[in-house]
Amino acid sequence: MVRPGGRSARVQASVHAAVRELEAEVGRDALTVPMVAQRAGVTPSTIYRRWGDLQELLSDVAVERLRPETPPEDHGDLASDLTAWAEQFLDEMASPSGRAYVRDALLGDPDGGNAGQCSAYAADQVQVILARALDRGEGAPDVETVMDGVVAPLMYRILFRPSGLDAAYARRLVTELLNSSGGGQ
Amino acid sequence: MVRPGGRSARVQASVHAAVRELEAEVGRDALTVPMVAQRAGVTPSTIYRRWGDLQELLSDVAVERLRPETPPEDHGDLASDLTAWAEQFLDEMASPSGRAYVRDALLGDPDGGNAGQCSAYAADQVQVILARALDRGEGAPDVETVMDGVVAPLMYRILFRPSGLDAAYARRLVTELLNSSGGGQ
Repeated sequence: MVRPGGRSARVQASVHAAVRELEAEVGRDALTVPMVAQRAGVTPSTIYRRWGDLQELLSDVAVERLRPETPPEDHGDLASDLTAWAEQFLDEMASPSGRAYVRDALLGDPDGGNAGQCSAYAADQVQVILARALDRGEGAPDVETVMDGVVAPLMYRILFRPSGLDAAYARRLVTELLNSSGGGQ
Repeated sequence: MVRPGGRSARVQASVHAAVRELEAEVGRDALTVPMVAQRAGVTPSTIYRRWGDLQELLSDVAVERLRPETPPEDHGDLASDLTAWAEQFLDEMASPSGRAYVRDALLGDPDGGNAGQCSAYAADQVQVILARALDRGEGAPDVETVMDGVVAPLMYRILFRPSGLDAAYARRLVTELLNSSGGGQ
C-alpha cells in the first residue's frame, strides 16, 4: 500500500526512525506523539491521521523490529537447523526488548494484523528450514506442526509462564516434535 | 495481601465492580480513572495510589474475569474431559471479550504477574482433569505436557494466528497429545 520512495514511505521511515531513536534516548514509556512528530519533522496530526494513536504506531514499529534480518543458518540437517533456530528465537523473544516488542505488536491492533505479521515472520523462517530439509531428501513435518509444537509453546511461556525457560527447553521441544512426526530421521 | 472484608478489600471490590459496569455501559476504550473513581465512590488518587494507572487496573479486572467459576466437567474419561475443556477454553478465550481480557491481562504488568495468573488458572483446571484420570486408574500426561500440547497452541493462535481456529482443531490437539503421550489409552 505504501509506494517505496513516495512521500508516504518517507514519512513512515522518518517517523519509525524517530520512535527508535527516542525509545533509546528517553525510554518507551516517556514517548508522546508530539515528541515523535518533532523529531521526525512532521506535524502531530500527520501521525494521528496515519496511525490513530501512539499505541498503534508503537505496534507498527515493534513489528518492523521483529522482522528477521537473515534466513536461518544452515547447519546441514533438519534437527540441527530447527534446534539452532528455536534457541535463537527464544533468546530474542524472551529478552527484555523482544518481550516489549511482542507486547507492543499484540497491543496495537484489535484485529491482529500486526500480531499475525509476527507469527508470519516465524512461519516463514520455519518454512525455509523445512524446504531445505526436503531438498536434502530428509523427511520434514509441515509448518503448522512446527508452529504448534515449537513456536507456540515458546511464545506462550514467554508471555504467560516465563519461569524456567531455557535453551534446553527449546531443544527438547524440537526433539520431541521430530520424534513424534517422524521427520528428521 | 488483601484482608477479606477489610477496607482494602472493599475498595478493590467497588472499583472492580465500577470497571465492569462502565465497560458494559460506555465500552472499555472510553474508561477513565476519574470516571471509575466517581462510580466506585473513591477518589481518583486512591486508584492511582493502588493501581498506578488505568492499564494496570484493567489488567487486574481482566484476570478476575478470566478466573474459572467451576471445575471442569466430569465426562467419565480423560480424553472426553480434556476435549470438552479444550473446546470450552477455546470458545471463551477466542470470543471478543475473552481476547480483550487476555490482552488486558498481558498489558498490565511488565513483570507478568497477571499473565502468570491466567496461565495458572488454565493449569489448575488441567490438573483437576489429570488427577481425576489418575484416580480412575487411567494413564495421564503431566500438566506441563498438556500446557505445551494443548493450551499453548490454542492461546498462541488466538493471539497471533486466529484464522481457521475451530473446535475440530482443539479436539485434534488433544487426540494427538494423548496418542503421543500414551495417556488416555
